Order: sequence, then C-alpha cells, then structure tokens
Amino acid sequence: MMRATSKQLSAYMKRTAFFISDGTGLTAETLGQSLLAQFENITFNKLTRPYIDTVDKARGMVQQINTAAENDGARPIIFDTIVNQEIRDILAQSNGFMIDIFSTFLAPLEHEMSSRSSYSVGKSHSSAHSANYMQRIEAVNFALDNDDGARTQYYDRADLILVGVSRCGKTPTCLYMAMQYGIRAANYPLTEDDMERLQLPAALKTYRHKLFGLTIDPERLAAIRHERRANSRYASFDQCEFEVREVEMLFKRENIAFIDTTHFSVEEISAKILVEKGVERRLK
Amino acid sequence: MMRATSKQLSAYMKRTAFFISDGTGLTAETLGQSLLAQFENITFNKLTRPYIDTVDKARGMVQQINTAAENDGARPIIFDTIVNQEIRDILAQSNGFMIDIFSTFLAPLEHEMSSRSSYSVGKSHSSAHSANYMQRIEAVNFALDNDDGARTQYYDRADLILVGVSRCGKTPTCLYMAMQYGIRAANYPLTEDDMERLQLPAALKTYRHKLFGLTIDPERLAAIRHERRANSRYASFDQCEFEVREVEMLFKRENIAFIDTTHFSVEEISAKILVEKGVERRLK
Repeated sequence: MMRATSKQLSAYMKRTAFFISDGTGLTAETLGQSLLAQFENITFNKLTRPYIDTVDKARGMVQQINTAAENDGARPIIFDTIVNQEIRDILAQSNGFMIDIFSTFLAPLEHEMSSRSSYSVGKSHSSAHSANYMQRIEAVNFALDNDDGARTQYYDRADLILVGVSRCGKTPTCLYMAMQYGIRAANYPLTEDDMERLQLPAALKTYRHKLFGLTIDPERLAAIRHERRANSRYASFDQCEFEVREVEMLFKRENIAFIDTTHFSVEEISAKILVEKGVERRLK
Repeated sequence: MMRATSKQLSAYMKRTAFFISDGTGLTAETLGQSLLAQFENITFNKLTRPYIDTVDKARGMVQQINTAAENDGARPIIFDTIVNQEIRDILAQSNGFMIDIFSTFLAPLEHEMSSRSSYSVGKSHSSAHSANYMQRIEAVNFALDNDDGARTQYYDRADLILVGVSRCGKTPTCLYMAMQYGIRAANYPLTEDDMERLQLPAALKTYRHKLFGLTIDPERLAAIRHERRANSRYASFDQCEFEVREVEMLFKRENIAFIDTTHFSVEEISAKILVEKGVERRLK
C-alpha cells in the first residue's frame, strides 16, 4: 500500500469508510452509503465489517482503522451499530471518526415512548425476518415458478404481473420485490407475436388489474441483449427499437401503467411500482 | 377505525411509525426498523411512504400522520430522509415525533470532511446502483442459470458454490447475494445418491475452495418440504433427518465450512458466508 503525501492529498480527496456491526451490517451500510453519497467530491473506500462481536475482533478492527488512517492521511469514517459497550469502547480508541447510530437516536426515542429499549442490534433483522421467513421463501418460489411466462394458471395468486419486452428487467424486479417485500410477482414477456396481433395475450386479459409494464431505452436494451446473444437479430438496435415502440403503444392503448427502467435501480423500480399499484408489502 | 381510550392504552402500547422519503424509502425503513426493534413491548404499525417529493404529497402525509395520532392516542414516530426544506417544513407541522436522519448526521460529517454535502437523498441509490446495474443483473442471471445443479460447466466463473440438501435455503441465499452484493453464487443439491457414495460429486471436487455448506433442522426441513410435496417420503421427518445427518457428516469429513440456517434470515446467512469465505462484494 502506498502512503499518500500531503501533496497528493491536495490533488484528490480519498477517505476510507467502515460500516461496522455485531450483526449483518446492513443498517450501518445502508445509512452510511446514503450519507456518504452526499459528498460527491470525495472518493470513499467502503468496507463492511459484520459480526464484530468479540473484544478480539474489535482489537483487530482498531488495527485496520489505524492502518487506513495512516495510508489515507485522514481519519476513516466509522458507522457503527454495535450494542456491547466494551466493544464500542475499544473501537472508540481507534483513530477514526465515529458516527454512533444507535446511541444518537435511541435516547430521544426512549424519552418519547417512555420506555427503555433493549438496545440489542441484530435482533431487528433476525426477529423481524425469521417471522417472515416462509412468506419470503414462498414469494421467491412464486417469482421463480412464474418467471418469463413459464405458466399462467397461478395468476389468480399473483399480487402483480410485470409485462414488457425480453430483457427489460422483469425478472430481477420480481425477485427483488419477493425478497424485500414478500410480494408475489409473476412476469410475462411480450414477444413479436403479441405485438403483431396488437392486443394483450389472452392469459393476461383476465388479470388486467394486476398488470404493470416495464419499458427501456432501445440502445440500452440492445447492449443488454448483446451480452446474451451477440450480433443476433434479437440484439440489433432496429429490432429493439421496433419492440419497444410497439409495446409502449400497447401499454397506452390498453391503459396499462408503465415505467421506463433505463435510469432506475431495481430498488427504485420496485418502490415506484408498489406506490403506483397501491400494493401493500407482505413482510412486516 | 376505533379510537383508543386511555383505559385501553394502559393495557397495551400501540404506535404508528412512518418511514418517509423522497426516494425509495429504503434508508429510512432500514434504520427505522432497527431502532424500533429495540422496543419490544410496543407494537408498531409500520408504514413506508416513498417518493414524497411534492408539497401536495407532503400535505397528504400530514393528514395521514394526524389521523394516526388521533386513532392511536399517541404521536406517530416519523423517520425521514427528505432533502427539500419546504417539504420537511410541512411535515414538521404534523402531530408526529420526527427523527430527522439526514440533518442529524450531515452537519458533523461536513465538519469532519471540511466539505459541503450535496444533501440530496435518492442520489445515493440511483447513482450507486445504476453504476452497478450490469454487475448485478449478471450476478442474478448467473444464480438463475446455475441454480439447483442445473449445469456445472461454469463453476470456474462462480465466486461461491452453495451445497446442501434440497430445500435448505440455497436458492434464496444465492439470489440475495447476487442482488445485494453482486456475488456470483451457484448452488448444487446433495441428493441421496451423493450421500450413499459418501463422497463429493465429481463436479464439485475441482472447486472445493468455493464450496460452502448449508444445513437445517430436520423438523423445519420437513415442514418446508411438506409445503411443496405434502405427505411424500421426500417430506417425511425420517427422510429429512437421514439426509441432514449424512450431509453434515460429509461436510465434516470433507472439511467444508457450513452453517445451520434454521434460525437465521437470508441476510444473516449471506453476511456470515461472506465473512467465513473472505469473499469481497462486487458492488461498491
């Protein structure tokens, strides 16, 4: 590893950020990522360190933090959700700048609710999620079994049915909604046949109220299809452009709500669909 | 809706919590869930409200918050990550207890980094995730294409190969690791044939260093299998118990690290595997 001189530091800003937890680290990571994204001029080297739940592991962390501080020439930023006071005391001795997520917010919440908290991180995920385990697995199985129009006879059990051209993002969106929200989402690819008939496939007509459309920029679609079947007609810009245009016309004609996925993440697409369709998540 | 009297309130505690954002709401929801989980005696009615990005939507939120306050006989708890000051001012007029995530932490971070933040939520997800879009889609495709031992010829490209009995949680774990971390994870079911030979299937031997085992409590396994094939030999406790015992012996004999998934969420299983195998996430 290279040691940055102060000359180098003036040319660019680089910081190490640690997301440290005695559990999965998801809370520290999610909050930390959101906060760091507000500092666009700084490049962060982001390191998640889950299951730091012993004094020994905490001492190892202090070494990593101090090494990063030396290499960067600046204190690393630490986002932590650790419960054990002994472990937090050890981390506090490091040469890092600590953002202590739990202690910051739990005191005002305890006051508001006139109730002591159990202050036990990790519980959040395990208790909430294990109660939801079967719901979630069922939703994932539903998405897998009803992927890509594989079968349509279980659409009565679907919360949502995503429609769109091949490779516009239907499968990852269905899987994400299953995993994150327990939503049962099927998906059905609109192929050239459906387009030429210029109408909805019969299997979908009965479930019109569950349909949601995805569309995508034709150039992006061509690039994605190219990864799968290079230099095919399927991946050509002309074909992609034709399909996208036809499908968007179908959505408008049939009054099916749809969004353009080109500039959105799977998280954003999923959240927008739930708002638009008014579908309630099944996980609590 | 019923209005709670103070008599009822003394018997049980119930509170509404809102996770409000101008983006997906994932940051507010993740942090809020973790914090609320520390109050085990209180039942929360949790409502996520993403894309609250106009003055009109904010006014609608105020009505929802005030209605909940009246029904509960207590102020709702509000976790928000909204950037726009005008929208936040409107929310602040509601009868809710606000936990303002961004303003709490951005000021100390700006000071530490001697840098102004762009204070623009939502950016976090879209910028970070869209840059990672292809990595992620590829990882999801890899998990789907290499699910359930479907094919083994691409194991050279795998970051991990999960092994275990049928229905022990391999597929959801692979999909979660793909979605959350961009990890390319295949999975291979250990079937009775492999057990009786008492050795690793040939396809796995070459990639021994990528293997990670999942195991599960036989009773839980029987319940899960029962959902798929009720009253089959496959779902019987005796069969499940036999398979789990044989596979755990195989793991020990072949020196394959493994964990018992029974009491863990998919998030926890995934985080533990990455720590154990020292695999680095591919998404930044």
